Amino acid sequence: MPTPRFVRADEGMWLFNNLPTKLLKERYGFEPTKDWADHLMKSCVRFNVGGSASFISSSGLVLTNHHVGSDTLYKLSTPERNIMEVGFLAQSPEQELKAPDLELNQLVAIKDVTAEVKGAVTDSLTTEQAVAARRAVIARIEKSALDETGLKSTVTTLYGGGRYHLYQYRKFTDVRLVWAPETAIAFFGGDADNFEYPRYCLDACIFRVYENDKPAKIEHFLKWSENGPQENDVAFVSGNPGRTSRIFTMDAIKYQRDRFLPYVMTQLRRQEILLQQYGLRGKEQARRARDDLFGVQNSRKARLGMLAGLQDPQVLADKAAAEKALLDAINASPKLKPLASAWQSISETTVKRAELLGAGVAVHSQLFNIALELVQMAEEDQKPSEERLPQFADAGRESLLQQLYSEAPIYSDLEQVILTDSIAKTLEQRGFDDPLCQDILAGKSPAERAAELIDGTGLLSVEVRKKVAAGGIEAINSSHDPLIQLAKIINPEVRRIRTITDQLDEQDKQAYAKIAEARFAVEGTSSYPDATFTLRLAFGPVVGYEQDGRQIPAWTDIGGAFEHEQQHQGQADYVLPASWKKAESKLKKSTPFNFVSTADIIGGNSGSPVVNRAGELIGLIFDGNIQSLSGNYIYSDKQARSVSVHSSAIREALQVVYGADNIVRELGKPGQ
Amino acid sequence: MPTPRFVRADEGMWLFNNLPTKLLKERYGFEPTKDWADHLMKSCVRFNVGGSASFISSSGLVLTNHHVGSDTLYKLSTPERNIMEVGFLAQSPEQELKAPDLELNQLVAIKDVTAEVKGAVTDSLTTEQAVAARRAVIARIEKSALDETGLKSTVTTLYGGGRYHLYQYRKFTDVRLVWAPETAIAFFGGDADNFEYPRYCLDACIFRVYENDKPAKIEHFLKWSENGPQENDVAFVSGNPGRTSRIFTMDAIKYQRDRFLPYVMTQLRRQEILLQQYGLRGKEQARRARDDLFGVQNSRKARLGMLAGLQDPQVLADKAAAEKALLDAINASPKLKPLASAWQSISETTVKRAELLGAGVAVHSQLFNIALELVQMAEEDQKPSEERLPQFADAGRESLLQQLYSEAPIYSDLEQVILTDSIAKTLEQRGFDDPLCQDILAGKSPAERAAELIDGTGLLSVEVRKKVAAGGIEAINSSHDPLIQLAKIINPEVRRIRTITDQLDEQDKQAYAKIAEARFAVEGTSSYPDATFTLRLAFGPVVGYEQDGRQIPAWTDIGGAFEHEQQHQGQADYVLPASWKKAESKLKKSTPFNFVSTADIIGGNSGSPVVNRAGELIGLIFDGNIQSLSGNYIYSDKQARSVSVHSSAIREALQVVYGADNIVRELGKPGQ
Repeated sequence: MPTPRFVRADEGMWLFNNLPTKLLKERYGFEPTKDWADHLMKSCVRFNVGGSASFISSSGLVLTNHHVGSDTLYKLSTPERNIMEVGFLAQSPEQELKAPDLELNQLVAIKDVTAEVKGAVTDSLTTEQAVAARRAVIARIEKSALDETGLKSTVTTLYGGGRYHLYQYRKFTDVRLVWAPETAIAFFGGDADNFEYPRYCLDACIFRVYENDKPAKIEHFLKWSENGPQENDVAFVSGNPGRTSRIFTMDAIKYQRDRFLPYVMTQLRRQEILLQQYGLRGKEQARRARDDLFGVQNSRKARLGMLAGLQDPQVLADKAAAEKALLDAINASPKLKPLASAWQSISETTVKRAELLGAGVAVHSQLFNIALELVQMAEEDQKPSEERLPQFADAGRESLLQQLYSEAPIYSDLEQVILTDSIAKTLEQRGFDDPLCQDILAGKSPAERAAELIDGTGLLSVEVRKKVAAGGIEAINSSHDPLIQLAKIINPEVRRIRTITDQLDEQDKQAYAKIAEARFAVEGTSSYPDATFTLRLAFGPVVGYEQDGRQIPAWTDIGGAFEHEQQHQGQADYVLPASWKKAESKLKKSTPFNFVSTADIIGGNSGSPVVNRAGELIGLIFDGNIQSLSGNYIYSDKQARSVSVHSSAIREALQVVYGADNIVRELGKPGQ
Repeated sequence: MPTPRFVRADEGMWLFNNLPTKLLKERYGFEPTKDWADHLMKSCVRFNVGGSASFISSSGLVLTNHHVGSDTLYKLSTPERNIMEVGFLAQSPEQELKAPDLELNQLVAIKDVTAEVKGAVTDSLTTEQAVAARRAVIARIEKSALDETGLKSTVTTLYGGGRYHLYQYRKFTDVRLVWAPETAIAFFGGDADNFEYPRYCLDACIFRVYENDKPAKIEHFLKWSENGPQENDVAFVSGNPGRTSRIFTMDAIKYQRDRFLPYVMTQLRRQEILLQQYGLRGKEQARRARDDLFGVQNSRKARLGMLAGLQDPQVLADKAAAEKALLDAINASPKLKPLASAWQSISETTVKRAELLGAGVAVHSQLFNIALELVQMAEEDQKPSEERLPQFADAGRESLLQQLYSEAPIYSDLEQVILTDSIAKTLEQRGFDDPLCQDILAGKSPAERAAELIDGTGLLSVEVRKKVAAGGIEAINSSHDPLIQLAKIINPEVRRIRTITDQLDEQDKQAYAKIAEARFAVEGTSSYPDATFTLRLAFGPVVGYEQDGRQIPAWTDIGGAFEHEQQHQGQADYVLPASWKKAESKLKKSTPFNFVSTADIIGGNSGSPVVNRAGELIGLIFDGNIQSLSGNYIYSDKQARSVSVHSSAIREALQVVYGADNIVRELGKPGQ
């Protein structure tokens, strides 16, 4: 197994069923056993809202980031008890708070189904037929796997279409909050410090999974390392990186750089200002907007980093050189040469994708999205599972309904603000005089229309949603709910755009399958595929870096947090919570707080456990620095670093700041 | 003189040389004498940074808004003495602070030069020739008027091109700060309350103009009304509304609605986020970004209000009906019918304008703008004054150099942030591979390039700017300054775009001249032209309005400010300054604070004096409510209101809160 030609240093988000054992042995003298890998894999948990986590006790304790749990912390908060602001601690299981709609997945098996999927989609099919055929075979595989095992079963597209693997998960839907610190320390430094380093964040919280109303029995969980890592120790990160685009051709990269990312940034800035403005209305509105606002700001800063990477001539030159080397190898081989047509195909889809930017209907809000989902579900359910849009296939129905019937609060005033703006945006994108826009407005201004829709809908009530869903297509056809009526008006256009993008995606899958085939031939099959929000192993030493002529150390400590506060003279996001100030004299200031490593991560890895060679927990991934963001397109270990909370900081805070003796006891002694 | 057909209620920003005397008599039983109008006109002052003001003492005291003076307050501030935050009071003339680059203009004469301008631009000219001919005749008129009188002389285009008037101003360039309150009370409620009502803002500050290092002797100034207005009293507003677009055809309106305003909003949101992010770096950075950030937020909210107006089917229907009525009248008259071709011409320019959106070069920063101005000035000065771009003609040279040689602080770190972003924006708009973009980058990333440019330029020094300017075209050609070199690279493209827009503007001027001609024929010449940042008179009663079923009173009082603070529980912009809290028990809480009237205003009117029939000062315009913003396109008095600080509130605060006995003495007794 040769070291892949285009993989540098500690690059790689490796599949658990294709770990780079030789590379690990050569570089770190470490050979992961099957048991080591299996234990780590099964100790990991995926948060379906978009994050990673791990089991840390046999009774179902789950450790993740505060910013991964925040969706739930937000939903569990009320004007009277804002958990986001004041934190939470259950002193006993009875006090744990049940999340309204969390689903956690534990990966238990991976199976290669490439032959079956590829066999169903032959070269003779049109793109339209290929979309249907691929959809059908995947739905069949997932349904029969679910029926056989009872496990949540999902076929994942790897290498952009080069491989298909079936992932099977044990699913937990009764998830309860055990502990969360205050946002002031979890996100210390706020938006300004986000994606920066050095950092001082306790970006952690703890949930517990239940089965049959009892703490679930968990066989595989991570034990605590006694001291965490030393400088230059290799750190292993096991989590679910969301999406990378390293396989992208230069044409696809240029589309991202010149069209897609600028477009997305524009949308994000618009949302950010909108949510800020709503939050200015009052403290309660600021609370209501807080979670969405964090998400938007986080995305905006991440995308800006990605875009800045692509606007750096050096990054582009590296990328172009890698593409040229691959194309040279392809063109030098008569057997591979026909695969080069893939580049042309992708060039064509980027042109069509550019035309679609802003062409659709931007109308959205939580309640509108529910209405549209009800409309589409009723339509799709008239077809056999295999022919439906994938999210409505039988295998995923439970997860779909858990979201649709969530009792999480929805705020009418915020709904109205978002709906107004999204209607206005639709007018701006399509032109006010567009007939669909006129149908959407129905003679009113966006604000008047949104007010009428939100005031008039019954979908705030979960019971109403269930009733509509139970009534099927007849209930939709006869509904007088204004939001359902609006969703029916908009639905055909949403479907039209969806059909086009499905076909573009299919065309790209076929092209990237060819590129993957070429790469396997040139580099061997020991490479890793782009991130797909499935479990991967990354690794690299704990080591600092140089920036603007300064050496950035690998570590910060708890004492540094207090210094960081002083340096910022009480600026908004630099005020430590009262609990920390109270505990200051008792805290061991030299306790390591945050640290960096070269392990290759991306959004979705948030909450990933970091372990040592012994498989012990040494940290908790919560961020990458600014320089890591162009890793979406190309990895570099020069300055790019993943950022973790040190395991010792979590224990120190639990014990000294939060008095969470119950949790500390349950975790057991470190190093044992 | 019939009442203009399309003018409703208190609509109108009337020319001082064409006041609606009959209308005023009919509606308010008031006949302004020549002296009344002349005194008011000469008591008014224009702030060339974009605002209005009035003389309030014979020794040159000038009253305007805090947010009009803020450009200067910002420039006079330092990290150690932040006048924006803590306010300012000169106890004696020696303590007054000289503004680094303010120019104030007092209008003293208006002359109709339509015949001369129109005579120089005949129908036989091409658009290109017409641009040059109009430029030349205007430069000639302005220069000879300046030479004759020594007065600043500016030809203003009225009715979109239907009339040309020469405005002559006494110019003040030695302007000193006398008093400013804290931003916390000047802009109480911040961005959230901006364009809202009821309000509680002391948006006022006082300057003094000097001549020969002594307070200027001022013949015409406003005396203080004893009690201010009563409900339903007519209020007169005399100030410089910046720009309205009421003459716009429906095609021009649709271009604004579907293309231009959405584009501008996108740019504003981008700047807003950029400045916010920079401000998060620290307290000093927040201070540095503050003034620009306010400007951007104010524009963003104003434009959103305008756009929302145009996205309201009812507003559009009103506008379309008015256009149809005018077109029907034109088409019914054989003599007028040929003028209808103007609509087609404007339809064509909107298409070309849409193509130009985002086509230019977005690169900017204060220092880059200075570099570009030096490059263009050197080029233009090789031509006779009449052939130059208007801003470089002889008549305006003094004002140009006052800005170019301003000693106002420029912050390198902020420059770098703005330059980086504006280079990135240029890449996004034109595509990274565009040859000009590659020349701009010179092989570096936008951030690296901006750092190199700002580190390398000498233009931070005013002496260097003067030296370059004195060296003329040779100094530019041989300059090694990296910003001047960059400006030379970008200049040809800036000029290319400028030439196109100049021609589109000329085409529109000719078209709107036809529309104006038709309107004069249909409505008579007693109408008022769109706003042009020249002195106008507006009027209307002090009266509340209904909103969401609630009656909004015309008045607030000082006590209300304290209640408003309490209701917002210490939210960021709702904290009254310490000076007000200290003075609370001494303040007369029933003193009227802010009030609304139906007078027709728009941005640029900020700082306008509001006077009663006796010509006494009763208030100070500082805002319009959200509903007034669509007044850019069409006036309504249903809910649209102008918002003023009450004259009594200013006196009460000066006396009780700020102990400004010296100022109060100088103002004299109210009502005398």
